[in-house]
Amino acid sequence: MARVFLGKLSRRLLGGHLWVYENEISRVEGDYENGEVVDLFRPDGSFFGKGYINDNSKIRVRILSRKNERIDGEFIKRRIEDALRKRKTLKDTNAFRVVHGEGDFLPGLIVDLFGDYAVVQITTLGMERMKSWVLDALIELLQPKGIYEKSSGTFREKEGLEDREGWIYGAGPELIEFEMNGLRFLADTKGQKTGFFLDQRENAKMVLDFAKDKVCLDVFSYTGNFAAHLLKGSARHVTLVDYSERSLEIAREILKMNGFENFDTITGNAFDILKDFDKSGKKYDLVVLDPPSFAKSSRSLESAKRGYKEINLRAMRILRKPGILVTSSCTQIVSEETFREILMDASFDTGTYLTVLKRGGQPSDHPVLLNVPETQYLKFYIFQVEKRW
Amino acid sequence: MARVFLGKLSRRLLGGHLWVYENEISRVEGDYENGEVVDLFRPDGSFFGKGYINDNSKIRVRILSRKNERIDGEFIKRRIEDALRKRKTLKDTNAFRVVHGEGDFLPGLIVDLFGDYAVVQITTLGMERMKSWVLDALIELLQPKGIYEKSSGTFREKEGLEDREGWIYGAGPELIEFEMNGLRFLADTKGQKTGFFLDQRENAKMVLDFAKDKVCLDVFSYTGNFAAHLLKGSARHVTLVDYSERSLEIAREILKMNGFENFDTITGNAFDILKDFDKSGKKYDLVVLDPPSFAKSSRSLESAKRGYKEINLRAMRILRKPGILVTSSCTQIVSEETFREILMDASFDTGTYLTVLKRGGQPSDHPVLLNVPETQYLKFYIFQVEKRW
Repeated sequence: MARVFLGKLSRRLLGGHLWVYENEISRVEGDYENGEVVDLFRPDGSFFGKGYINDNSKIRVRILSRKNERIDGEFIKRRIEDALRKRKTLKDTNAFRVVHGEGDFLPGLIVDLFGDYAVVQITTLGMERMKSWVLDALIELLQPKGIYEKSSGTFREKEGLEDREGWIYGAGPELIEFEMNGLRFLADTKGQKTGFFLDQRENAKMVLDFAKDKVCLDVFSYTGNFAAHLLKGSARHVTLVDYSERSLEIAREILKMNGFENFDTITGNAFDILKDFDKSGKKYDLVVLDPPSFAKSSRSLESAKRGYKEINLRAMRILRKPGILVTSSCTQIVSEETFREILMDASFDTGTYLTVLKRGGQPSDHPVLLNVPETQYLKFYIFQVEKRW
Repeated sequence: MARVFLGKLSRRLLGGHLWVYENEISRVEGDYENGEVVDLFRPDGSFFGKGYINDNSKIRVRILSRKNERIDGEFIKRRIEDALRKRKTLKDTNAFRVVHGEGDFLPGLIVDLFGDYAVVQITTLGMERMKSWVLDALIELLQPKGIYEKSSGTFREKEGLEDREGWIYGAGPELIEFEMNGLRFLADTKGQKTGFFLDQRENAKMVLDFAKDKVCLDVFSYTGNFAAHLLKGSARHVTLVDYSERSLEIAREILKMNGFENFDTITGNAFDILKDFDKSGKKYDLVVLDPPSFAKSSRSLESAKRGYKEINLRAMRILRKPGILVTSSCTQIVSEETFREILMDASFDTGTYLTVLKRGGQPSDHPVLLNVPETQYLKFYIFQVEKRW
């Protein structure tokens, strides 16, 4: 096993961060293949931790453990057991994230459980090499009918990995049914990410209380998570907007499965549609904005901020006042503070007051590890929007 | 009515903030008494809003409305009706904050409802002059059996007001019983603030799921809000710590009213007790920290930060690992970001990992008005605390 000696240890690393950048390494003794587990040492030669290395990644080593322990199938199993223990308090759902990468001390691994089926996403070469251990542990601990691998995305390419999608254990349907907050849903194995955005589970539940008799617009609806909750909360009508006709088709199926009829769908670009509605004077009582990430790196931070301002400003304008704005951001590099500044900017321009009715965030199955600030990405607010004068 | 002309309007004021500082006023036309309502004008002479003025306050004018409307009993009633509308979604409680000052566009007024009784706190001279309107509106809208005024604190002195405590309408008991989250409580009219910290209602509910079989320490317990929730959540034992023997006596009464027996109380200084427990090696499975505000102004920010670090560090040390830390800050000038930095500092020094299991904040009856950032003060987290190695 190669020995990686760290240079002057940053407070970040000493404080428990799991990422070792190239410039934090002073020298490496011994050979290694990319993706292999290496030992990390302090400048004084004392043991610091274990992690997997990849020269093709800016994050050279991702730390797996700060203990001098064997990294093997048993280790992976213990980590997943720890993760399951943290999720014991989850209620009203048979779907949850079992493993959330760094947040569960398993960098590079995402596992979502939807009822009897698990969906796995592997984002790093190091984790790819441990895939059989992951699979064994998941089969033993979750006893699923099937495990679907949904490993695709630009991060794979950077790590030197090809995309992989398909059932890797047992088998199951293309659309996996599950239950959440008293509603029935379908995870789309051919859809975005792991098939369903479980991170909005508790946030979506919060809209139940604000939907009664409201005419609602659900923008970036994907397969209708928020729409279903709005209708369960007795919304008068919900219009879903998404660019993907496939997602809207599944949304219609989900809403019908739950016995809802008061909805329609619009396929198209959300920015354009919001702008059109604003210009034509269309009004809603409640608007949901649940856009995909607008930026993967800090290079695109400014354009992401512009995007958030644009959609939130349009939503504030098309709301009847007082109205309800449900707004979210999953862009990791947009901090909660920055998101609030953007919302204040939009409030400034629209002459509105924004009162926080609810603030959400990540549920405990998408854990934020304070020592690794990058584990936090989801911001969520429900506002009352009033005219200022 | 005096006419107050504003100098160059700050983005803060244009964006809806309700506080006009002395240096934002260019001139005043006409005479006024402190506490009187004045008209505000833009530099170009156009109408800007209405508010009440007080030369004894650094916040010279507190804006009541940006509309050119009469400030009278009907105005106060409409504002309280708006506030009640925002609280319609509250559940599982017959006690809530009816009016939260600036957050409900009624600067200087706090009203808490506990079952059939209201407790009112007036913090400014301007609101004091409107007290009879407030009283009339509360009687009409809430139909309470009694209204207790609990106007005391250093802010009163600064405004040129004397303390006032006592029943100002009807009458009621010294300890007012109410229900919350399926538990019975007592608000202490002779206790802190309005008698009970309703702002922790939803946060306290979150501990229910984490208490089972745990040996718990509830530090700065006041009358036992968190302790009651821990015991309802099947905690094995709870030790309450508070400096006030009166508060602990009421806490014991509340816990017994709810049929709980597995608790004891310690009267004393929480800092000293945490330090003693740390030095003597005493261990708990779950620690709650719910301290009073550590700083009223930015002059004492550094000492507040030291205070938070000290208690959180001690709590992390006396926890069995993995353990649960329930930690809170109600100091307005300590931002959420700063609070997290303090917690990270304590995590650094104690060699722990902090995973967010739940994040709380202010419930919707203590509304945060984004346009007035000072309306946000409460930070709340439930962490899993683990050893780093």
